[in-house]
Amino acid sequence: MQQIASPVIGLLTDFGTHDNFVGVMKGVMAGIAPTATFIDLTHDIPPQDVLAGAWALGTGYRYFPAGSVFVCVVDPGVGSERAPVALHAGDWYFVGPDNGLFHFVLADQPVHAAVKLTNPSYHLPTVSATFQGRDLFAPVGAHIAAGCQLHELGEALPADTLRRLDLPQPVQKSDRIEAEIAYVDHFGNLVTSIALARLPDFFDWPLVRLLLPRKQLIITERRRFFADQGNDAEPFLYVDSSGYIGIAMRNASAARSLDIGRGEAVTLTWRHA
Amino acid sequence: MQQIASPVIGLLTDFGTHDNFVGVMKGVMAGIAPTATFIDLTHDIPPQDVLAGAWALGTGYRYFPAGSVFVCVVDPGVGSERAPVALHAGDWYFVGPDNGLFHFVLADQPVHAAVKLTNPSYHLPTVSATFQGRDLFAPVGAHIAAGCQLHELGEALPADTLRRLDLPQPVQKSDRIEAEIAYVDHFGNLVTSIALARLPDFFDWPLVRLLLPRKQLIITERRRFFADQGNDAEPFLYVDSSGYIGIAMRNASAARSLDIGRGEAVTLTWRHA
Amino acid sequence: MQQIASPVIGLLTDFGTHDNFVGVMKGVMAGIAPTATFIDLTHDIPPQDVLAGAWALGTGYRYFPAGSVFVCVVDPGVGSERAPVALHAGDWYFVGPDNGLFHFVLADQPVHAAVKLTNPSYHLPTVSATFQGRDLFAPVGAHIAAGCQLHELGEALPADTLRRLDLPQPVQKSDRIEAEIAYVDHFGNLVTSIALARLPDFFDWPLVRLLLPRKQLIITERRRFFADQGNDAEPFLYVDSSGYIGIAMRNASAARSLDIGRGEAVTLTWRHA
Repeated sequence: MQQIASPVIGLLTDFGTHDNFVGVMKGVMAGIAPTATFIDLTHDIPPQDVLAGAWALGTGYRYFPAGSVFVCVVDPGVGSERAPVALHAGDWYFVGPDNGLFHFVLADQPVHAAVKLTNPSYHLPTVSATFQGRDLFAPVGAHIAAGCQLHELGEALPADTLRRLDLPQPVQKSDRIEAEIAYVDHFGNLVTSIALARLPDFFDWPLVRLLLPRKQLIITERRRFFADQGNDAEPFLYVDSSGYIGIAMRNASAARSLDIGRGEAVTLTWRHA
Repeated sequence: MQQIASPVIGLLTDFGTHDNFVGVMKGVMAGIAPTATFIDLTHDIPPQDVLAGAWALGTGYRYFPAGSVFVCVVDPGVGSERAPVALHAGDWYFVGPDNGLFHFVLADQPVHAAVKLTNPSYHLPTVSATFQGRDLFAPVGAHIAAGCQLHELGEALPADTLRRLDLPQPVQKSDRIEAEIAYVDHFGNLVTSIALARLPDFFDWPLVRLLLPRKQLIITERRRFFADQGNDAEPFLYVDSSGYIGIAMRNASAARSLDIGRGEAVTLTWRHA
Repeated sequence: MQQIASPVIGLLTDFGTHDNFVGVMKGVMAGIAPTATFIDLTHDIPPQDVLAGAWALGTGYRYFPAGSVFVCVVDPGVGSERAPVALHAGDWYFVGPDNGLFHFVLADQPVHAAVKLTNPSYHLPTVSATFQGRDLFAPVGAHIAAGCQLHELGEALPADTLRRLDLPQPVQKSDRIEAEIAYVDHFGNLVTSIALARLPDFFDWPLVRLLLPRKQLIITERRRFFADQGNDAEPFLYVDSSGYIGIAMRNASAARSLDIGRGEAVTLTWRHA
């Protein structure tokens, strides 16, 4: 990788914005990569929720320019045996704990190189036991943005040893998919684990039914645009900007109105033309 | 417009910071305008509250350098017939849905050019139905920041067709103004729709009374500085940094203490010297 | 100070991110220092809590590159007799109200110069009574980042007149320290005012007891890493990333679980080897 004029460093953590943690990480990085542009993906991942972090990264990184570096810290196991790693996958770089946070990146992108961050020359002089974001991941990410090669950062790791999450995969049969709610966004939209790519005819089928068994609720309305929905009280199916089928209500939180959260089982059935 | 070395892109949305939405928009823009500086006006506009978005933009944009581009998305009608637009008004550029979000800009600045964003060359290759912020407004804003001319972005729109909000205007009589609470800030200060510019003698009149009819409350204290107020328990009148007359309490939230929010009717009366 | 290519401006306020206040400050600064990189330390300081602001600044500034400028506004006395100041202390610059916000900086760094911001040439043309962050502190901070010398900004102040906070200091005896909880972070960790530097043998002593007298609670477990703690239900002692001894629980908020906040008295005792 050659040094680029204005490298982008994306940040994703569960640190919130109440403390100075994220600002301090950027301060460290600004000293190493002074021309970097910092972009926050989000710092409001629920504390230690690796899956939520993996989702926010996995649905976002593709929109960043090639060469962008993502520094990601959702790390319940800080200081434990999970390895601190850096990856070059697809057109991007990723730095963080090897705990499943890169699950969706690994599922979708070829890994060109992966290293365990064992070379202390690229860390802060003192690495604290409790804030590796500041002392290890931030300086390593900034060094990559400043042109450092991955192999300088530590020992190579085989890509297939990198940690994946053990997620329930949607079960697809000839006329149905059994899946779950994978994400709830700021507006209360409920995003399922069913990618539209599995069902390219979704909007063309004469009938689609999404069943929420626990709630004994069936949703059949499909909408391409939120504004198409005339009725504020009725939930409808849409395709989320992440590319997955979701449940929304116009001008309301489907999560709150339907009292449904992540992990809720859903079954999608359809009738072919 | 010529390309400038470090263009500023201001962002205003109701997306919150819980999801990766804002970060993804910046990722898209960093690929198009790599030297841009991103400045968040706020992303905490209450969901789909166009008026609150218009106020946050309208009281802020003047403080940005000439040539700044504002990408604004508070868009209850995403995908409906409201047009996606870009404007050059005063010394600034504005990109977003034509739904009233630019109300205060249009009230105060001459519009040099306005276009409907019909040229897909400046959008992402696939424009989703639900996230035009990422797929349309972000790339267009970045292209303007990178030097693109407005007329390249789509067909010209007459400035007088741009959408204004239908706001109750303060009614001014010889000895009174009937108005309302237009905004409640983070500290709980209540900002009225009465601009100080209407009442340049505000601090010189011997008597001023702000009546809150529903609460049967009258406020007469005026303070230039918060620190002038000795009594924490009593509300007082001040001039908000936006240039409008407001109601505050020292070291407390006037909104919470008085149980008053946006839209509350107020009547200001005074006695001339 | 010479002008540097990409000066860093750190921001710390109690303004929150609900309003456009912080964005407007950055807009003002981008016009004066177009190549500056803005880094938010935090804007979620509890309203007017000068001590919390001082702590967030004091535990963070060292991680920023030499020459960084910090614009800090937690200012209950805006418009009162407290002076607006700028300091050059250690390798950094600090701008804000002289109300104790720089307490920990002053405790740890030599002050090379300090001025009262009396020269209006470096302020916005109109300084409002209620938003000196925008009208005074932001432009002054940006002028420093752009290369302005401190003595141009106003009249010199003797460093020893700068305001310190009147904080209870830990009382150290031969076998105990009486101190208090100084900070509660986003994860609910309770950080005491006892710096590890006072007790370099902390992890080597055979026995350490932290007593919370009001709660009649004694904590004896010490952990270098959060992951070392097997039991989620039991609080333990650790060294916070700020360098102070803290109380944490694994996968839980110690503050909420123990019902303890800032100011709570603690006594640390130990037995030498």
